[in-house]
Amino acid sequence: VEPGLPALARLGIVGAGQIARMTYQAALKLGITPRLLAERIDDSAALVASDVVIGHPDSVAGFADTCGVLTFEHERLDVGLLERLEEGGRVIRPGTRTIRAAFDKIHQRRILTNRGFPVPAFAEITGPDDVFDFASVFDWPIVLKRARAADQDAKGVWIVENQAEALRVLNEQNRHRMLAESFVAIASELVVLIVRRPGGHVRVYPVTQVTNVDGVCREIVAPAPVAPATAEAARTLARRIADELDSVGVLAVELFLTAEGLLVNELAARPHNAGHLTIEATPTSQFENHIRAVLDLPLGPTWPSCPAAATVNVISGIESTDPSANLTEALAVEGAHIHLYGKRAGPGRKLGHVTALGSDPDEALAVARRAESALLGRRPW
Amino acid sequence: VEPGLPALARLGIVGAGQIARMTYQAALKLGITPRLLAERIDDSAALVASDVVIGHPDSVAGFADTCGVLTFEHERLDVGLLERLEEGGRVIRPGTRTIRAAFDKIHQRRILTNRGFPVPAFAEITGPDDVFDFASVFDWPIVLKRARAADQDAKGVWIVENQAEALRVLNEQNRHRMLAESFVAIASELVVLIVRRPGGHVRVYPVTQVTNVDGVCREIVAPAPVAPATAEAARTLARRIADELDSVGVLAVELFLTAEGLLVNELAARPHNAGHLTIEATPTSQFENHIRAVLDLPLGPTWPSCPAAATVNVISGIESTDPSANLTEALAVEGAHIHLYGKRAGPGRKLGHVTALGSDPDEALAVARRAESALLGRRPW
Repeated sequence: VEPGLPALARLGIVGAGQIARMTYQAALKLGITPRLLAERIDDSAALVASDVVIGHPDSVAGFADTCGVLTFEHERLDVGLLERLEEGGRVIRPGTRTIRAAFDKIHQRRILTNRGFPVPAFAEITGPDDVFDFASVFDWPIVLKRARAADQDAKGVWIVENQAEALRVLNEQNRHRMLAESFVAIASELVVLIVRRPGGHVRVYPVTQVTNVDGVCREIVAPAPVAPATAEAARTLARRIADELDSVGVLAVELFLTAEGLLVNELAARPHNAGHLTIEATPTSQFENHIRAVLDLPLGPTWPSCPAAATVNVISGIESTDPSANLTEALAVEGAHIHLYGKRAGPGRKLGHVTALGSDPDEALAVARRAESALLGRRPW
Repeated sequence: VEPGLPALARLGIVGAGQIARMTYQAALKLGITPRLLAERIDDSAALVASDVVIGHPDSVAGFADTCGVLTFEHERLDVGLLERLEEGGRVIRPGTRTIRAAFDKIHQRRILTNRGFPVPAFAEITGPDDVFDFASVFDWPIVLKRARAADQDAKGVWIVENQAEALRVLNEQNRHRMLAESFVAIASELVVLIVRRPGGHVRVYPVTQVTNVDGVCREIVAPAPVAPATAEAARTLARRIADELDSVGVLAVELFLTAEGLLVNELAARPHNAGHLTIEATPTSQFENHIRAVLDLPLGPTWPSCPAAATVNVISGIESTDPSANLTEALAVEGAHIHLYGKRAGPGRKLGHVTALGSDPDEALAVARRAESALLGRRPW
């Protein structure tokens, strides 16, 4: 980093999926042209950016040599390597303390537990015996998770009903570290997005409620339809975690709302799917605030600029419809803000999202769903 | 154009200044990656786009061969050449009828006069005698204009007080066709942005008021502080002109409000500086609606999403301050939406703009001015 002029240092983004694509767009607005480390030339952000290096994430050290500040849109990186880069004087944002907690869900749970944050019961799974032990204490179903995230479109969470199902998942995922957690009766899944600047200045976005289907985020509404005290507790919890990890940039804190209160489900140290609606629904999108934070620039306002907003993800079904071919129908849905990522269709791939604003979350959701149905060539819900 | 799938045809944009840069960003949102014809590799949009052809505007025919739909961000093109391309089956949007009216101000005035639209008195100037004749009828000062636009940062309008000043301008501009017009006492300069789809569906943006200093647009507010009947008359006038020209895409209609009513000053057949505030202040920016229109996709809403908005252009002074170096100070201005174009500073160059929203135009303007001052390292107004 050139002293005193972080905004003029070259910003490198590791990863070139849709999160990087939207972050790139936010950077352009500020006159900044990030350099991207993409895995493939047809990665979502690589299609549109002018300064793209193609390489495996393991080549991050060479990439870092050409950048003043480094940030990340995915978790498929060797944390030890990043720690060595940081020790060598590279500016890694968020820092590797946050990265380790965000990238490794076992480490994450241990840190959160040690610092007194509420989390579901969990255990590392090193083999079938561990599953058996865990289930004998917490009963079926249990939740199995990969400790390290897969790519943005891949599944990483399974709810299993019995030992046979558990073994099938462990078998499929046998190259990966896994954890088990107790299946919690969830009233609601909330995500709090918090953005934090070096030195600790933070801004917190309105709490969102997400609906996951089969482990994949499908719909998001803001504000989350929960009691004001619950929303405030969620924001306070997120803020304490961000401070504890000394995070920089956007930290997404995924929470379970249960009969016993809030539990921390997962952390992501980057712009998050639940925050796509901040593009239209707040004065400063999560992407722009992430850029501002990692370059140590003043953060922008995060308050809601409308009563309610909703996002519906455009997820490819098995028929692999190209949503671009249905733009005519989708853009005819008045008030739908359509975002397409330029990705090739394929089952389960997130191809885009639709955000709508409204006077309440249900009204916004209805508009977004209509446009999403149109994009996928389905009849409206 | 592939039949029935205009959104899947490759969109070519001729020009790579800031208008193209913001249009490019709007296209990305819709999953579209336009190809740009840039004159220089460091043109504002060429810096950030992935698919850029470097060439003189006269090479547009070869460029058009590689695109399904062609649109334009500047007026420095040979209209005859575009007419031949259109006759040869190329999809040129707006069509060359609109382009000829927009690019050639003498032709523009004649068409508008012939169709009964109110314009200031004018005459083509082919030499000093024409100026003398014109001034003997309309009195000094008179306005001299280049018939064809210069680049986005260059001056094309002069108010001259006497024959000597007029001759100096004619001498400087002697390679260019010129027109003279009567100097009109202007209460207000208004711009109406209208977007029109092939077939005639239109949407009209809220009327803006612009403040020009020395022939260069400096500030814009919306809604224009004029009587509702005046705003409605301005919108109706713009709509009639768009229909008359059968325009496609954004048409910017610049109007003078005088004691005798509205006069049409100029037309631009592209997104316009006065419409930059539509990014934050309306549901669909002028850039996205331009993309939608030229690809024959449904237009998005253009109503105001806040009570008032203002834009202040960031124009380089002689000291050529780099606004990126002042981002820390500028982003600290709460509520300022900062857009930088990545251009090298140089006297009179538009390097960016700041938009702010507010409960009235003055409130918004005050915020935008503070951030603009910060970007240029000046003390606030």
